[in-house]
Amino acid sequence: MERPSEPSRQTVADLGEHALIARIEAAAPPAPPAVVVGIGDDAAVVEPERGRLTVATTDALIEGIHFERAFCSPADAGHKALAVNLSDLAAMGAMPCHALLSLALPAACPVCDVDAMLQSLLALAARHRTALIGGNIAASPGPLVIGMTAIGNVARRRVLTRGGARPGDILYVSGRLGGAAVGLASLRAGPHRAAREPDDCRLRYRRPEPRVRLGVALGRNRAAHACIDLSDGLADAVRQIAAASGAGARIEADALPIHPEARAWLDADGLDPVATALQSGEDYELAFTAPPAFRGRLRHVRRLVGDLPVTPVGIITREQEIRLHRNGREEPLPGGFEHFG
Amino acid sequence: MERPSEPSRQTVADLGEHALIARIEAAAPPAPPAVVVGIGDDAAVVEPERGRLTVATTDALIEGIHFERAFCSPADAGHKALAVNLSDLAAMGAMPCHALLSLALPAACPVCDVDAMLQSLLALAARHRTALIGGNIAASPGPLVIGMTAIGNVARRRVLTRGGARPGDILYVSGRLGGAAVGLASLRAGPHRAAREPDDCRLRYRRPEPRVRLGVALGRNRAAHACIDLSDGLADAVRQIAAASGAGARIEADALPIHPEARAWLDADGLDPVATALQSGEDYELAFTAPPAFRGRLRHVRRLVGDLPVTPVGIITREQEIRLHRNGREEPLPGGFEHFG
Repeated sequence: MERPSEPSRQTVADLGEHALIARIEAAAPPAPPAVVVGIGDDAAVVEPERGRLTVATTDALIEGIHFERAFCSPADAGHKALAVNLSDLAAMGAMPCHALLSLALPAACPVCDVDAMLQSLLALAARHRTALIGGNIAASPGPLVIGMTAIGNVARRRVLTRGGARPGDILYVSGRLGGAAVGLASLRAGPHRAAREPDDCRLRYRRPEPRVRLGVALGRNRAAHACIDLSDGLADAVRQIAAASGAGARIEADALPIHPEARAWLDADGLDPVATALQSGEDYELAFTAPPAFRGRLRHVRRLVGDLPVTPVGIITREQEIRLHRNGREEPLPGGFEHFG
Repeated sequence: MERPSEPSRQTVADLGEHALIARIEAAAPPAPPAVVVGIGDDAAVVEPERGRLTVATTDALIEGIHFERAFCSPADAGHKALAVNLSDLAAMGAMPCHALLSLALPAACPVCDVDAMLQSLLALAARHRTALIGGNIAASPGPLVIGMTAIGNVARRRVLTRGGARPGDILYVSGRLGGAAVGLASLRAGPHRAAREPDDCRLRYRRPEPRVRLGVALGRNRAAHACIDLSDGLADAVRQIAAASGAGARIEADALPIHPEARAWLDADGLDPVATALQSGEDYELAFTAPPAFRGRLRHVRRLVGDLPVTPVGIITREQEIRLHRNGREEPLPGGFEHFG
């Protein structure tokens, strides 16, 4: 017999909307002083950072599209929903401060799943000093949808956009590429001929790390002309930078910092690690451009971000084309990820 | 034979994500000067209003839960998605300024539906001087979801919350009650025995009017102790105000400004208009409390909001109970709308 009162079996429909909101309010840490009205009223009220601009972004994680339950726990999904939004703020050079959560939950969703999702979301928020200030909860007739809005701030002359790249700028990328894609592919494929399972790639897929420190450091130190995050892959990112800047780019295939586990896994299947590194989304690294003269500023930024690699992978060109330099030849660049693609 | 290239048949999957974003960017009017970076970058950057607090809210409209395609056109849905968020800002006394749109679209969704949705959303935004500054688009494996975040501003000492009501305050409500509920019910029921179809109620359901001017006027003139919007009905709103204020309330059934068309439609079926007025959500009117001494301020506010009725419907009490005074007796208050309820 079903026992809906048993905590581990309780669904969101058993609990109800008001009790769920009260639960979220209780789970969130005390709001910082800048939050004048937090969770529980019609809207949140916050004090903007004096003399700084407000940066806002929204992104949703949809079950069956952005994550699969089989390979992504509720805790992973909660982390990721906030991470992708913080990644967008980082790409603007902005410091995150507030977040709003918009949940669409299937009625049968267990309350313990909501708790797990919330816990990891709040853990990531705490690491980035981001306060959950409000949101809403609705029933979903279909998939679980985690909608997030993140709000941050940036000094006026420190905003990074996609549009500032200039011919001669060096194109850099943070971290390692292809990890998230191979993480998901390996989860889907199950046991594999590669020497061992790509555990770090899986972690990169399940818990991407938004490069907040790097984005803020690049903005503060005026160390980049243009910046973007790799939510839809490096190829797409470079196309966006080039289009917004009225320029082109040449990417060096040999320079791409491909995740070593990803390379081994792909090599074992005879797949092309360069194509994966260029096309795969979800790495949530940053790509940015800076002229050679910024080398000193970049050295300073590198010290600030600790052991996060920052790799030059190409150059911005005057010709408005995107080319891949590989094996002594220039190839057309493969496409990036397109939703509905 | 299908012709996907014919504009009226084109789906969002035909068009693709980047083209959709470009389409939204083209449809939006030129951004006001406070928008430093608008649609098309990783995040939006805006200049906060000097010396004012930032107010932020997020709410999603989900097909099959918050609206039914049969009774709510894409244009209605676009209007409503923004309206419910502006209503939340109004309840805080905040002036709206920016909005972010997060769309989850089924792949088969026609592009002309997105256009219609966007057009009505932008028309409402223009009326309230609200700039669409960004958002995101994703594929939905299930229902259409329109997620909105609205950002506004308010002077520090003009914030309205649910928590300021005091015993002796008069409880007021704006507009007419029960209209939206009867509008939807009449659409579902089809031709009806009531003298004529409740067209104004249907309009109230399809195109709720956020009470921005009233909310802002109440805040600016310090004419209210507490305020909330009626997204989940008056009964729920009064419970929320009472709980947040540590007080109770007595509502006068005879004073409720029931929509005349709604009353006629309900009477014809022998249904109770008072219960509908108390329980039905979606009217998106404001409920607020003010002491008798604020009568002069309220007279001023009434002049500012033109012909919008503002009706006293009860009183805030010290006893922490909510009662309904009707036919010389006091009854328990019926419940409000609960999602998952």
